[in-house]
Amino acid sequence: MTTRVTIWNEYRQEHTDAPVRRIYPEGIHGAIADGLRDELGIVVRTATLDELEHGLTEEALASTDVLVWWGHVAHDEVSDTVVDRVQRRVLEGMGLVVLHSGHFSRIFRRLMGTSCDLTWREDGGRERLWVVDPSHAIAQGLGAGFVLPEEEMYGEHFDIPAPDGLVFLSWFQGGEVFRSGCWFVRGRGRIFYFRPGHETHPTYFDANVRRVIANAMRWAAAPGGEMPTYGHRPEPLEQF
Amino acid sequence: MTTRVTIWNEYRQEHTDAPVRRIYPEGIHGAIADGLRDELGIVVRTATLDELEHGLTEEALASTDVLVWWGHVAHDEVSDTVVDRVQRRVLEGMGLVVLHSGHFSRIFRRLMGTSCDLTWREDGGRERLWVVDPSHAIAQGLGAGFVLPEEEMYGEHFDIPAPDGLVFLSWFQGGEVFRSGCWFVRGRGRIFYFRPGHETHPTYFDANVRRVIANAMRWAAAPGGEMPTYGHRPEPLEQF
Amino acid sequence: MTTRVTIWNEYRQEHTDAPVRRIYPEGIHGAIADGLRDELGIVVRTATLDELEHGLTEEALASTDVLVWWGHVAHDEVSDTVVDRVQRRVLEGMGLVVLHSGHFSRIFRRLMGTSCDLTWREDGGRERLWVVDPSHAIAQGLGAGFVLPEEEMYGEHFDIPAPDGLVFLSWFQGGEVFRSGCWFVRGRGRIFYFRPGHETHPTYFDANVRRVIANAMRWAAAPGGEMPTYGHRPEPLEQF
Amino acid sequence: MTTRVTIWNEYRQEHTDAPVRRIYPEGIHGAIADGLRDELGIVVRTATLDELEHGLTEEALASTDVLVWWGHVAHDEVSDTVVDRVQRRVLEGMGLVVLHSGHFSRIFRRLMGTSCDLTWREDGGRERLWVVDPSHAIAQGLGAGFVLPEEEMYGEHFDIPAPDGLVFLSWFQGGEVFRSGCWFVRGRGRIFYFRPGHETHPTYFDANVRRVIANAMRWAAAPGGEMPTYGHRPEPLEQF
Repeated sequence: MTTRVTIWNEYRQEHTDAPVRRIYPEGIHGAIADGLRDELGIVVRTATLDELEHGLTEEALASTDVLVWWGHVAHDEVSDTVVDRVQRRVLEGMGLVVLHSGHFSRIFRRLMGTSCDLTWREDGGRERLWVVDPSHAIAQGLGAGFVLPEEEMYGEHFDIPAPDGLVFLSWFQGGEVFRSGCWFVRGRGRIFYFRPGHETHPTYFDANVRRVIANAMRWAAAPGGEMPTYGHRPEPLEQF
Repeated sequence: MTTRVTIWNEYRQEHTDAPVRRIYPEGIHGAIADGLRDELGIVVRTATLDELEHGLTEEALASTDVLVWWGHVAHDEVSDTVVDRVQRRVLEGMGLVVLHSGHFSRIFRRLMGTSCDLTWREDGGRERLWVVDPSHAIAQGLGAGFVLPEEEMYGEHFDIPAPDGLVFLSWFQGGEVFRSGCWFVRGRGRIFYFRPGHETHPTYFDANVRRVIANAMRWAAAPGGEMPTYGHRPEPLEQF
Repeated sequence: MTTRVTIWNEYRQEHTDAPVRRIYPEGIHGAIADGLRDELGIVVRTATLDELEHGLTEEALASTDVLVWWGHVAHDEVSDTVVDRVQRRVLEGMGLVVLHSGHFSRIFRRLMGTSCDLTWREDGGRERLWVVDPSHAIAQGLGAGFVLPEEEMYGEHFDIPAPDGLVFLSWFQGGEVFRSGCWFVRGRGRIFYFRPGHETHPTYFDANVRRVIANAMRWAAAPGGEMPTYGHRPEPLEQF
Repeated sequence: MTTRVTIWNEYRQEHTDAPVRRIYPEGIHGAIADGLRDELGIVVRTATLDELEHGLTEEALASTDVLVWWGHVAHDEVSDTVVDRVQRRVLEGMGLVVLHSGHFSRIFRRLMGTSCDLTWREDGGRERLWVVDPSHAIAQGLGAGFVLPEEEMYGEHFDIPAPDGLVFLSWFQGGEVFRSGCWFVRGRGRIFYFRPGHETHPTYFDANVRRVIANAMRWAAAPGGEMPTYGHRPEPLEQF
């Protein structure tokens, strides 16, 4: 079975910000797509903010099994229509993987119902990610965890609902911790939030980060039950 | 310590619908308030849709520890301003108890991030509520559960996030089941959804339903940790 | 990838009890195995209480991906050695599917840490199972749920830890409800408890029940992260 | 309402180990008891391993609302009888607060069903505890978290069931993280595991640690629903 992935990227800082362009000359979406290139059974498309309907038309989403979301400086430019559409598709069963600064995206805040706020510092210190659920599919191939030599810090409190499950916790050199790999179910859809990926660090070229994202694609796309039907049921199942 | 409760009611069908007025001549909010009258340490106010700012001004919410919400036919008339305000107050720590058809209220859907849809039938059959968490404060005084002789049916699938905890499950005479008492934490706030309370049945006069609501007031108002601060932390706690 | 399943059955009442033998002439394990016969990639063995080491030798468990457990009248005859061994294998990553009266098995109580008690009545009434998590792999192919025309009743309170996830709820004709499909993670292992299957009803020939069990085999065997190592870490990762 | 607390301490290393005796001349239980001295409505007793029945007779437990557990080098000397008794009392509704090396106590492993293993290093580095659930009663008065200047390190993976809720996460100077404040419900009982408290550090004199423990006493003792009754229910509630 093929998993059809759409990688969505805001794709602005790659144009405006030389250090970002230097690290991600093909865009952050390009680096993420490159990381999935050799994954069997995963077919990748990309979409960006400045495309028509942000590249997320009804047709595009209808043929997407898992949507990856990276955004940072232009969350507010994502239209109501597209936020509504993505939310509906997630509730119908499309997977959603939200990366790093996507914690503040309209779609993530919409699906969480909270502020999704946190503390942060661009100090380029080390981040250590630890596996706290060794049974989880997203932890496959990552041993006890892994290190990112330089990253932005995100610290608790992270204002999300208690995740349905926690896969990774992060340790930061500057003294903070963070719930870095969190999964949620909303409707029929599976959501994974994964913390690393600041635009000034080459995080999406890291082999372990790529492993996490590939694992998340398969986990989020795995088949579940059928889409429920809702509403009026005029006839009781049992007579009384 | 006093718990300051505001009971919000849409208060429309009591005016337009003779059978509802007959059961709730003082309004659904009046019946709920009456049920809390003898509870020590609980002070009750009410507010309704057609008041200025739906009776939920900044001042009113600032002095509310727990907000009770009943709405049905006019969810869409609740303003953006008030939905935003209530959401913010919940994240800051105000308790919220959502009753019955409030599952479709804008504030509940906002906080859940899902459709909050379900199946339903106005058959007036029996509902049996069973306690599934005997450790929970909201289960106090309710034994193994209780019976409502006539109610509307709500059936699964109920499209909510998996609750942080489940207190009651309902059995319906017509063959369905429902997660009838669910708690959630969002930000610093505690939320309880309680299913019973269709406007054509005298549910809010039932002694067990009143016990659940009084218990929920105390649970939702209980003190927690402090409100977090978010944002930039320019100085690391540890030097490197 | 092949999933190696071992179906364990107490296999006593099939010998001592004519009505049970009539329904399950090949044993309950035989009926469950028969239900998995046409499942691609699932290889089935069986084991029973009266075999040497109850058929669950180190070798047998080492080559088992998912163990299915049915027991009822002889829980106490399962040896400490085998309970210890199965627990260890679950923590290492073997899946475990516990059926019906297995709620009182030594291995389930050991892994849950609670009494696993419940209420019950052999009334042969209808049971309706409702899907409450349409995203879950075990709900695949079951629509909104299904009906068993005759079963034993199990009622709440069911004394288990809050499950990591709830897939099915049951409605019973006599007025009770039950958390009928519950999953848990313990160590690296995935556990599914599935309620139906009293020995005097032909439940394990039911197509929907067979679908649930086949789904549970695949879910419980799916690969996760690596087995952690524990203990002393004399060298800090960061110098100070 | 008075909360009756029993603080149980193994109380061995205070006799055999000079550095421990120097820090805890009145025993670890003495220091914990001292920390609760000025808490209104909390009445404290202590009990130790070498007392008759480890000081945990039926009578002692029957009049205990919350039991605190500290043990380290003599877990295996705790008798089956006492482990069974404490487990039964927890399921009936007694609170249990397990401290630090109590993760390996027989009672905690019994209630969790897992190995409760972890990684560790006695490096005396800094530990930073962060609040991840600001709604929780146990987080009261602790702001965003607090620092312990010297402690033993405990690292993930911590082999426990996913907690029903997470209150604190720890950061360690040597590079690890840990789920340091975890709550669980088992039966009617509430359980809190709190990580800090190695015998060679003055942790139980720390004001914040004392605040956590006092908060945990009130949380674990708070009233819930009634003790369920289990077993045969010969009469259906609904006729069919």
